[in-house]
Amino acid sequence: MAVDVQELVAQARQGRPRAVARLISLVEGASGQLREVMAALAPLTGGAYVVGLTGAPGVGKSTSTSALVTAYRKRGKRVGVLAVDPSSPFSGGALLGDRVRMGEHASDPGVYIRSMATRGHLGGLAWAAPQAIRVLDAAGCEVILVETVGVGQSEVEIAAQADTSVVLLAPGMGDGIQAAKAGILEIGDVYVVNKADRDGADATARELNHMLGLGEGRKPGDWRPPIVKTVAARAEGVDEVVEALEKHRAWMEEHGVLDARRRRRAALEVENIAVTALRERIGDLPADQRLDALAERVVRGTLDPYAAADELIAGLTENGG
Amino acid sequence: MAVDVQELVAQARQGRPRAVARLISLVEGASGQLREVMAALAPLTGGAYVVGLTGAPGVGKSTSTSALVTAYRKRGKRVGVLAVDPSSPFSGGALLGDRVRMGEHASDPGVYIRSMATRGHLGGLAWAAPQAIRVLDAAGCEVILVETVGVGQSEVEIAAQADTSVVLLAPGMGDGIQAAKAGILEIGDVYVVNKADRDGADATARELNHMLGLGEGRKPGDWRPPIVKTVAARAEGVDEVVEALEKHRAWMEEHGVLDARRRRRAALEVENIAVTALRERIGDLPADQRLDALAERVVRGTLDPYAAADELIAGLTENGG
Repeated sequence: MAVDVQELVAQARQGRPRAVARLISLVEGASGQLREVMAALAPLTGGAYVVGLTGAPGVGKSTSTSALVTAYRKRGKRVGVLAVDPSSPFSGGALLGDRVRMGEHASDPGVYIRSMATRGHLGGLAWAAPQAIRVLDAAGCEVILVETVGVGQSEVEIAAQADTSVVLLAPGMGDGIQAAKAGILEIGDVYVVNKADRDGADATARELNHMLGLGEGRKPGDWRPPIVKTVAARAEGVDEVVEALEKHRAWMEEHGVLDARRRRRAALEVENIAVTALRERIGDLPADQRLDALAERVVRGTLDPYAAADELIAGLTENGG
Repeated sequence: MAVDVQELVAQARQGRPRAVARLISLVEGASGQLREVMAALAPLTGGAYVVGLTGAPGVGKSTSTSALVTAYRKRGKRVGVLAVDPSSPFSGGALLGDRVRMGEHASDPGVYIRSMATRGHLGGLAWAAPQAIRVLDAAGCEVILVETVGVGQSEVEIAAQADTSVVLLAPGMGDGIQAAKAGILEIGDVYVVNKADRDGADATARELNHMLGLGEGRKPGDWRPPIVKTVAARAEGVDEVVEALEKHRAWMEEHGVLDARRRRRAALEVENIAVTALRERIGDLPADQRLDALAERVVRGTLDPYAAADELIAGLTENGG
């Protein structure tokens, strides 16, 4: 059944959570109204500051996310949370484990929380997340926290989605730091050592500081990723995280980095949509230009794969547009 | 400098290793003669039986590959080896650790060994391997062994490349089995428990047998993946592996599976080449249709990403062909 998209968008702008939820559902799936929704959202987007939070399981991502929601609410900001972390209490149909803390925000009309299943062979965030972020942005969220589990590819993806990337660590997970070294240390704009009341917090911060090689190869004016120690469960250090985020945002605006990151993010998004659309067209080609007919000729040795690809593209460009 | 491709191909057909090496170098990189080589190879391909070997580090993949080379050479077959495993002694510029065993084959004109660096964000095998396989095929290799390290995505990719996929395990790596459960148990046509002289080999085979759920949901005539125990370092059980491979090949031919797999492999290859070519075209579009100009409009909110993708595709199809 077709939905009145303009009406839904208007309701979402008024902060009606059901309208927001309905819009995200429309853009998440391959609904027939996806394009209509995206077109309606476009002029309303660009106001939100998107913060990515990533880290290995056990570092306290969801507790930190929740504490950040509280901190931003105290500052009067409307906050959206997008959890793409299967281990997150925000994620999945039900809240697991952290029900009380979430319940606190669940009754707050200034907070919109959405969980999202990981999906797709590229690790999940790539597809539905940018669209859901657009919905939250258009709905008037001033800050959007995107929480994702920190495993390899997804960290890189979230860095591509967020204005600012927060990487979380915890003491006693030294192996994790080593393992994540390759990926995680390239993407953080702000580092948080959570559970800082535990033994080894200072050592973790020192190790991190060492591995980041702070100062090395940086030019004056370059951003120096701060390391903030927190005990998110007691809200300790969380204001310092918000300050670090606001500083990074101000630095990005001052240096034209925010705009550059958003253009790069949009370019990636547009390219992914276009390539997916082209892949779909491949499946819709007339029989004699179809991929399976070309593959048959490649197997027979009457056509090489590059010539076959040329024919496929020719078919696409003739039948497309 | 342009190479005489026809002459190179003729030399490769005569088993001249330097010609084979030169051809693989031409198809591996983005050489200007890639298409010429691929076109010259096409009519000469289709004769090779491609066997993928995968498994976690430490299971003895390269020792098994070497033992299989010996076994096939005894049967008078010309053998190609493509190692896409950074831990393999075949791989990298130099032979590491296993020099003697490799030296044995290195002086055999009926064996061609090629290593290949893992590359590309999809895990490596996707790109250069199919082209290198075509070179070895056209050069007259009757069996091509493709060795790859078994980590997630690459297993799925090798299964897509090979006619028959061999999954190797070893005793005392129970954790590895559990971890790999999701991926590895879906793709094996033949399972090998190597190092079968060690404690726990029977338990590993039993566990594997249990996890494969042999017989469950299989129809009469379906392929039942055998589990072969080997001690590759002493060539024990290797003839049984060759027998299992030949049985699988015969079964595939009898049931039309071999042809279906090769068509699917070719289709995937053609589609990947086409999508890559289209992505390259995106970079070559005139300025006003360029991705960055569209991304700028998306960031400003004057265009939504789907409409931007439509414009991008329109630009591609106008300027392409």
